[in-house]
Amino acid sequence: MQSSGGVGRRHSSGRRGCAGGSAQSSRSAHQDAVQWSVPHRPDLPVWYGERRVDAAFPLDPGTRGGRGGGECGPRGDQRQPRKTNMMGMMADGTSRVSWNDQQVRQFMGVSTLSQYTVVADISVAKIHQDAPLDKVYLLGCGVSTGYGAACKTAQVEKDSTCAVFGLGAVGLAAVMGCRAAGASKIIAVDINPKKFKLAQELGATECINPLDHKPRPIQEVLKEKTQGGVDYALECVGNPTVTSEALESTVDAWGVCVAVGWSDAGPINVDVDELLVGRTLKGTYFGGCKGADYVPVLVDKYMKKELKLDEFITHRLSLGEVNKALELLKTGESIRSVISLW
Amino acid sequence: MQSSGGVGRRHSSGRRGCAGGSAQSSRSAHQDAVQWSVPHRPDLPVWYGERRVDAAFPLDPGTRGGRGGGECGPRGDQRQPRKTNMMGMMADGTSRVSWNDQQVRQFMGVSTLSQYTVVADISVAKIHQDAPLDKVYLLGCGVSTGYGAACKTAQVEKDSTCAVFGLGAVGLAAVMGCRAAGASKIIAVDINPKKFKLAQELGATECINPLDHKPRPIQEVLKEKTQGGVDYALECVGNPTVTSEALESTVDAWGVCVAVGWSDAGPINVDVDELLVGRTLKGTYFGGCKGADYVPVLVDKYMKKELKLDEFITHRLSLGEVNKALELLKTGESIRSVISLW
Repeated sequence: MQSSGGVGRRHSSGRRGCAGGSAQSSRSAHQDAVQWSVPHRPDLPVWYGERRVDAAFPLDPGTRGGRGGGECGPRGDQRQPRKTNMMGMMADGTSRVSWNDQQVRQFMGVSTLSQYTVVADISVAKIHQDAPLDKVYLLGCGVSTGYGAACKTAQVEKDSTCAVFGLGAVGLAAVMGCRAAGASKIIAVDINPKKFKLAQELGATECINPLDHKPRPIQEVLKEKTQGGVDYALECVGNPTVTSEALESTVDAWGVCVAVGWSDAGPINVDVDELLVGRTLKGTYFGGCKGADYVPVLVDKYMKKELKLDEFITHRLSLGEVNKALELLKTGESIRSVISLW
Repeated sequence: MQSSGGVGRRHSSGRRGCAGGSAQSSRSAHQDAVQWSVPHRPDLPVWYGERRVDAAFPLDPGTRGGRGGGECGPRGDQRQPRKTNMMGMMADGTSRVSWNDQQVRQFMGVSTLSQYTVVADISVAKIHQDAPLDKVYLLGCGVSTGYGAACKTAQVEKDSTCAVFGLGAVGLAAVMGCRAAGASKIIAVDINPKKFKLAQELGATECINPLDHKPRPIQEVLKEKTQGGVDYALECVGNPTVTSEALESTVDAWGVCVAVGWSDAGPINVDVDELLVGRTLKGTYFGGCKGADYVPVLVDKYMKKELKLDEFITHRLSLGEVNKALELLKTGESIRSVISLW
């Protein structure tokens, strides 16, 4: 592996520490499970890993050092992110990894599934020195994405009504975001009622299983419950049909639907009339957060007990159990698994 | 015709005057041409006519009197507009028109194709007393819709880049709105190059005919011209395929596309990836304007020569020539025709 420029991050086993020191490495299986199949997957070979909490050391004079968290999301050329980090390149359009003289792409510009890596300083965030790394790693993607989708992309307002579709980690974080923004009604929607208890703990005021209302469309049920529709709907399933339903669940004249979940199951069909009466459909990546600035804010919220993370971690597994982690995720048994690399 | 409550509007022939006095009635053919085929068309029988500049007289104590302009757009129950005025009812859910004891629905809650009508006060706007009524009637729908789509719905920012798809009256007004908002680049897109001269007069910095670039997709052309995509795209054609193209013409991370044109040609297909990287698709009705407040502002802009209207009127016809007006519109020969009812 080449190592030049940017900020290097060094790992060591089993110890936790402040940003700038050595740290336990931890990660979730979900993002990789999704990203293995995305159309914007970088050309192979690619080195995976899209988040880590660990020590960071500046390699070049003039780069920002001493930061200790990484995140996914558009980076690099801000007008054309899919030409840089989303295509497995760093912000400057290069990869710093090679194998047998062949360039290896860096997943999301970071490639954190490694003992050492080189990343751009904008992909690193300095976090609270006492933060438990096996918890705050969740802010490297899923939880920040859901929370940010509510607070930053949708900009949920106080006393508004919200619906969150899909209660995986991203959806549950969106519920938290809606509550933090002061929504008066937060309706959590999932076909797996096992998720409802945690959703309520995190802020949902009501939980609905669409299967209980079949054959009635869920958007009709929600419109009836909210006198015309919710102000904000957050689609965290990753299903184009659900996105259409979520959009149509919002109120005619000012409803906002945020598509958070990715899918390759075809386009989202938007009914022209539903849109023209005043709805908005927005997409979000990493919840609209700039990681270097916003991840530390979320870590601080966790340290002050204003944001929950422990509840998202349902399993702790070794690297050898990675396939089990994926299976737990697919069946809906887990929210997030922590996998120790060493 | 029943006549009770709200604000009455009286017409007389051939004379122009201030709001509150008698006036020449004038209207455009386009809105009716579209609305005759919309799925939210009120049940028949319905009395058409969706805008007028004329005298208005309060009929009920307590209603706002002395206003003199009407407009289309969601009204009535703000959470469920399609239950009231968009279904041919007034704001209170009633129609004030009957024929042979049968209730007749009021198109957009106003029914202005009549000598007398009854409308809710919120459907009336008091305008500048010297405004030429055969010009400012254009602000009853099309021009306000396009201008508002840029300034209110998209909220075009100073020095931004914009693309306007479709150079009918709405699109041309959108070009004006982009210029008023201070956009530095306004690319007008139409397959009819006859529209380009007027588009440039109204503010377009460049005009593109997609047919000149076939088989290259127009979104690729625009992305190349703008280093990644425009900040704002306004779809004023009313074609779901063009809306998808317009959305994909915007920049990855913060592009906003506003769908202005109505169509019954099926849903808009939104590519999940194009959305998730940070795009927004918004719909607008009447350009997001509250007519009673905003139409007078636009009339004042016209009176101060800050907004152009005369350029939109290409033909003046009698009511007997209404089919000719529709034909001129379909073939793209006219922008707007003024039809005198008497």
